[in-house]
Amino acid sequence: MPGPSQQLHERLLAFGESIRLLRRRVGLSQEELAHAAGLHRTYVGSIERGERNLSIGNAWALADALDASLADLLSPMPGDDR
Amino acid sequence: MPGPSQQLHERLLAFGESIRLLRRRVGLSQEELAHAAGLHRTYVGSIERGERNLSIGNAWALADALDASLADLLSPMPGDDR
Repeated sequence: MPGPSQQLHERLLAFGESIRLLRRRVGLSQEELAHAAGLHRTYVGSIERGERNLSIGNAWALADALDASLADLLSPMPGDDR
Repeated sequence: MPGPSQQLHERLLAFGESIRLLRRRVGLSQEELAHAAGLHRTYVGSIERGERNLSIGNAWALADALDASLADLLSPMPGDDR
């Protein structure tokens, strides 16, 4: 079983990947998504690479900008099937 | 339509409430939940009152401690039915 920080790293990677997949599916650039979410483009890039333990408020802002619920972006996650 | 900060406030309140409901359902005190999640009891109390824009990592830690997925704790949320 991965340690807490390894598990957090894997989850942030998975969350970032789901943001990227949905962003591309709806045809937004990182710049357009960042603008819609009120965030900086480089910050969105680092979130997509799984490098940010972002606030839940910023996670909701990204979900709103992608017209998705945060729950959708979080399912399924590594460790959910414990 | 509530402004962004009002919507964030409502969502944090709803999230805190879902943490509290599940914590009570599984029979944990705030102290026990905080210990299991590696957080301070007073911090868990402020999260349950919707006063914290917590990190997604801390949100996962609480979900794990409650043996739930974070997606479960986030469904449904104010604004999901936009």
